Amino acid sequence: MSDTNDSCVLCTTPGGAPVWQGAKLRVIRAEEPGFPAFYRVVWTAHSAEFSDLSEEDRLLCMQVVAAVERVLRVQLAPTKINLAALGNMVPHLHWHVIARFDWDSHFPAAIWAPAQRERSPEQEAALVARLPEIDAHLVATLQPWS
Amino acid sequence: MSDTNDSCVLCTTPGGAPVWQGAKLRVIRAEEPGFPAFYRVVWTAHSAEFSDLSEEDRLLCMQVVAAVERVLRVQLAPTKINLAALGNMVPHLHWHVIARFDWDSHFPAAIWAPAQRERSPEQEAALVARLPEIDAHLVATLQPWS
Repeated sequence: MSDTNDSCVLCTTPGGAPVWQGAKLRVIRAEEPGFPAFYRVVWTAHSAEFSDLSEEDRLLCMQVVAAVERVLRVQLAPTKINLAALGNMVPHLHWHVIARFDWDSHFPAAIWAPAQRERSPEQEAALVARLPEIDAHLVATLQPWS
Repeated sequence: MSDTNDSCVLCTTPGGAPVWQGAKLRVIRAEEPGFPAFYRVVWTAHSAEFSDLSEEDRLLCMQVVAAVERVLRVQLAPTKINLAALGNMVPHLHWHVIARFDWDSHFPAAIWAPAQRERSPEQEAALVARLPEIDAHLVATLQPWS
């Protein structure tokens, strides 16, 4: 598979707010409405599936996913972390790393399911206020993989 | 965190059709209506989050996830593989490994989203007919981690 695909949105754009760029992958903030603490680990090369990566690259990828997860847990104490690599619409390997809270609009359903309740502007705003600090922690934590 | 939790469905039941049992984790077939080729990699100990595992255990876990993914790809040539560790309802680490097809009821949406179309009994039946063979390939492939 070629390294870049000119018609792929994750090959041609950051895919969200850039947070950290490593040698083989990057972390972006997804900026999905209702889920402020929603990050993505995006593999740089245009590979569709996790098992397209070498064992070494899969290890690197999941080290970064686990590091992002750990920062979110330590900083935000979410109810649950959700991890997912779907890629049905954008078949370029990217891991969703989402801090979920029992007050969020969809909990305990998946974020792709119908909403369970109204959004909470106050609690979302409190999370949004933490994002610059979270992003800084991510950059510091991910430094070994830069 | 203790190794077992008496009120956890993945501590007290297989959680699906047993396919393979390893020293630290197992593979089950989820038996979710509409998605015959839907497997789960279930960590044996009652850990909620991926980052609760040691680096060594995370590597083992994702080696098995990638091995299941590869068997599904080689045997079924799905449109896409979906991987997810959510656990909002059952906070015991389990990885969904789902072979998705462009004809399935939800594609390209996530399986947790509203359906996009009617189910296809004929195509589902053709997949179901392959499951004993897929399960056998999984058992053979996962032997190194038994």
